[in-house]
Amino acid sequence: MTYEEFLAGDPVVVTAALTGGVHGKEANPNLPETPEEIGRAAAAAEEAGAAVVHVHARKPNGERSFATERFQAIDDEIRARADDVVIQHSTGGTGAPDDVRHQPLRTDPPPEMASLDMGPLNRYRHLTSENTRALVDSLFDEMRERGVKPELEVFNDGHLNEVHQFLDRRDVAAPVYATLIFGPGTLTRPRPRNLLHLVSNLPAGAQFNTLGFGRHQLPLATLGVLLGGHVRVGLEDNVYYERGELAASNAQLVDRVVRVADELGRPVATPAQAHEILGL
Amino acid sequence: MTYEEFLAGDPVVVTAALTGGVHGKEANPNLPETPEEIGRAAAAAEEAGAAVVHVHARKPNGERSFATERFQAIDDEIRARADDVVIQHSTGGTGAPDDVRHQPLRTDPPPEMASLDMGPLNRYRHLTSENTRALVDSLFDEMRERGVKPELEVFNDGHLNEVHQFLDRRDVAAPVYATLIFGPGTLTRPRPRNLLHLVSNLPAGAQFNTLGFGRHQLPLATLGVLLGGHVRVGLEDNVYYERGELAASNAQLVDRVVRVADELGRPVATPAQAHEILGL
Amino acid sequence: MTYEEFLAGDPVVVTAALTGGVHGKEANPNLPETPEEIGRAAAAAEEAGAAVVHVHARKPNGERSFATERFQAIDDEIRARADDVVIQHSTGGTGAPDDVRHQPLRTDPPPEMASLDMGPLNRYRHLTSENTRALVDSLFDEMRERGVKPELEVFNDGHLNEVHQFLDRRDVAAPVYATLIFGPGTLTRPRPRNLLHLVSNLPAGAQFNTLGFGRHQLPLATLGVLLGGHVRVGLEDNVYYERGELAASNAQLVDRVVRVADELGRPVATPAQAHEILGL
Amino acid sequence: MTYEEFLAGDPVVVTAALTGGVHGKEANPNLPETPEEIGRAAAAAEEAGAAVVHVHARKPNGERSFATERFQAIDDEIRARADDVVIQHSTGGTGAPDDVRHQPLRTDPPPEMASLDMGPLNRYRHLTSENTRALVDSLFDEMRERGVKPELEVFNDGHLNEVHQFLDRRDVAAPVYATLIFGPGTLTRPRPRNLLHLVSNLPAGAQFNTLGFGRHQLPLATLGVLLGGHVRVGLEDNVYYERGELAASNAQLVDRVVRVADELGRPVATPAQAHEILGL
Ligand SMILES: [Zn+2]
Ligand SMILES: [Zn+2]
Ligand SMILES: [Zn+2]
Ligand SMILES: [Zn+2]
Repeated sequence: MTYEEFLAGDPVVVTAALTGGVHGKEANPNLPETPEEIGRAAAAAEEAGAAVVHVHARKPNGERSFATERFQAIDDEIRARADDVVIQHSTGGTGAPDDVRHQPLRTDPPPEMASLDMGPLNRYRHLTSENTRALVDSLFDEMRERGVKPELEVFNDGHLNEVHQFLDRRDVAAPVYATLIFGPGTLTRPRPRNLLHLVSNLPAGAQFNTLGFGRHQLPLATLGVLLGGHVRVGLEDNVYYERGELAASNAQLVDRVVRVADELGRPVATPAQAHEILGL
Repeated sequence: MTYEEFLAGDPVVVTAALTGGVHGKEANPNLPETPEEIGRAAAAAEEAGAAVVHVHARKPNGERSFATERFQAIDDEIRARADDVVIQHSTGGTGAPDDVRHQPLRTDPPPEMASLDMGPLNRYRHLTSENTRALVDSLFDEMRERGVKPELEVFNDGHLNEVHQFLDRRDVAAPVYATLIFGPGTLTRPRPRNLLHLVSNLPAGAQFNTLGFGRHQLPLATLGVLLGGHVRVGLEDNVYYERGELAASNAQLVDRVVRVADELGRPVATPAQAHEILGL
Repeated sequence: MTYEEFLAGDPVVVTAALTGGVHGKEANPNLPETPEEIGRAAAAAEEAGAAVVHVHARKPNGERSFATERFQAIDDEIRARADDVVIQHSTGGTGAPDDVRHQPLRTDPPPEMASLDMGPLNRYRHLTSENTRALVDSLFDEMRERGVKPELEVFNDGHLNEVHQFLDRRDVAAPVYATLIFGPGTLTRPRPRNLLHLVSNLPAGAQFNTLGFGRHQLPLATLGVLLGGHVRVGLEDNVYYERGELAASNAQLVDRVVRVADELGRPVATPAQAHEILGL
Repeated sequence: MTYEEFLAGDPVVVTAALTGGVHGKEANPNLPETPEEIGRAAAAAEEAGAAVVHVHARKPNGERSFATERFQAIDDEIRARADDVVIQHSTGGTGAPDDVRHQPLRTDPPPEMASLDMGPLNRYRHLTSENTRALVDSLFDEMRERGVKPELEVFNDGHLNEVHQFLDRRDVAAPVYATLIFGPGTLTRPRPRNLLHLVSNLPAGAQFNTLGFGRHQLPLATLGVLLGGHVRVGLEDNVYYERGELAASNAQLVDRVVRVADELGRPVATPAQAHEILGL
């Protein structure tokens, strides 16, 4: 995916990362936590232009959960309220045991997509997500079995190197779809030149999604639009609308990136178009 | 450090990574394992032009050891045989408990330099080096107390982002010295453009050292010379001299990179010059 | 100027290139040609957010003119209709004799800014703009004498090399202000990575303006906003609003880039702020 | 051509630029000027490892000449003394009229290769090489008619843009072969990152040759070797062996770059291999 795709006006797939698992309503009271709140947020995000919703589950107390039944409850709410939005479950997770990481894949039906972290990362003082190759491969194998499209999460250029090696090891259906993630800790430093660097190291034929944390969300998404990529916005990654002003909703963040893409001449993909583009 | 330093003919510091802790004589029978072998290899590497030797310790059976007394035995052999070569101890290590990682700092005298891994990495199926911030900070604090210069090991561009955050958290004496490492697993993919990318993201005033695994050792070291950086070669990182031909010794690999630097017009730093350049 | 300036919300100076000297109403009937039309277009562009207007003069038959009195007539119309917009005269020109190229500097008062092409370029089969160093220097000397700020026009990375050599030869007041130009012929190929390349080769402290021809105008201007630069739009460089739809006016093109900058969180500089930013 | 070609050990074609047309023996008394001197220099360069000799002609007084008979005399001397070295005639030229620029193509037999400048350039105060598209096309047409392979000379990234447009206009036989040139004036600034920039903008399938003026000759040639490209050295481009020491001969410069390529594991192409690689 390159500037030529931008010039050609290829549709951009917008993913809304609705809730995450790190911060909650204490960071932004508009962040959805319960299945019903997440379902409503998904419908509003789809209405605003999101074709995919990236979902984490939480326990009733707001803490992160990997339990299949929590994901099931969320999916039921999303399907009841939204139209055709693609559901993507997170399997990522700091400190969770490997077998627990499989649970989000086991809803009925399974999610159409699920995240697959490509390597270890540190974001805080004591914690590491190990994301060993053994876990990556076992999550992928279960995804394939259940017909779940992996969203390869690339937190730095070492993870992108692993993408190449992963494609050598495993039979991944085209198109490969990788999210390039920029932020603090051991993530790639959020700078425009670094996004171009990662894009230039993608495997041939891969599609990319652009994710910047915090105030980098909008500028890097805009650059992603210009480079022919896809974009992810939402309260999981950024709780502010602008400096000092909390976002009112996930839909508000989707709205803005849709307006920018529209000004730049790239239409936003519908869920049906996203199915085609991503090979779902 | 830039091409301007190359043009100015600034000396290049050559580090010889003599033995490592992953492969042994089964990979190359010329790889030194015992303290005496390592001491002889250090002297020969210094003779060939290395100003620094990067050292790991091994148990009598060849397995990796972090024990202070094993490093002490090696240092005694090096000091008995070499002239002024700078001794750098590895504190890196897959799977070793955090307190064990401090032991290489506790020789008498302490090493002049020690490695400090800037984040987690995966290289094989099940293993991760976690390298949490808590460990990074506690190793650094003991280094500062003992007067040991940290060699910041940067395995990908996320680690390089952590270098910036580490400099914000801790008071690191100038010049910051970072080794940029390229190889398989979650390391930056070994490509010339990727070395330029990492160099363009270094903190202002930092010096860099160039380390490519395997057949990337020489080309990336040569590029490091052209970009005004320093270089590391040796049997820890590469057991071959050329395709299908095992290296005869660490000194043979040092010899070659010294010849290349010499052809390109950059003199090789003596240990005394390395002291000045690295602020030892 | 970098992404950090973008993050800091530094104002972006928008230049409107109202008319040019190559195509006329045959390309877009909304393109202003007479002094009065240009004056009205300048006022509307300022109203829309432009702080600078880039001006060419034309003969009554629409052909390009370098005559001082034609520029004088335009400036009079602009000053009668606009508020404080900065006037920038073009001194560029395919095939015009060197002495003729000085005439746009000789209005009363002189323009606040004037373009200064940094080297030769080919855009069509037989024509070359020579832009020798002798001409560059003599135009600059007259600009300095008359208090005219040079806008250094950089059509490729060789011209950018000349900027460095020009700063070595001549005493150019800070901040150096260079327009980076992308298009067909011997101009830099219009690609996002090439804009980053040029930006990375700017002299320290220089400010840059972003100019893409045709359908590259908006995407490269957007990237210029993200990189902390300034932007130029207008009918001289691009006669379309979108594919197949002619632009209604210069102001319409200014409006759009102002909306994009606003969504991205960068305010647009007023003429007063442009004076400060550009050191007028 | 990329780092992968370097890793694969593909042969590097070394071109020796024996004499040029700008400076003469006043710059370096070892620079060959007469046909006999040039013939001897070609044989020595071939002996040292050059597969191609780039040739300019001079009048008896040392000034540059485009006359067919002067080229004929040189070629006769080269063929009498060298073995199989490929002869490449320069058609480039500051200020020479367009019809004169065709004369170097008209020897019997014609040269196997000839240079074709892709656009205008300034190197001194008053002079410009216009190199209009009309001239480029007419030189190319005569080359094609006579079976002469064009060496596309790219002096900056605008010229590289013209290469793409030239390939759209004319039917150029594969492989396209472009020399990337770095130096003062309106040439691309000689920096390693700028060589990577140009390489990343080459048309698919093109081969490149690396040419840095003066002290940039060796470092940029070395980088060209690492990037899988070809290299040009010689007294036309650089009269020094190292700082303050004039080169003893063209062969001395060839010798050195051959030693560097050899250390880096890339063999030097024989004239026969160059025929295959360049499609002669
Ligand atoms: Zn998530
Ligand atoms: Zn080590
Ligand atoms: Zn103009
Ligand atoms: Zn020449």
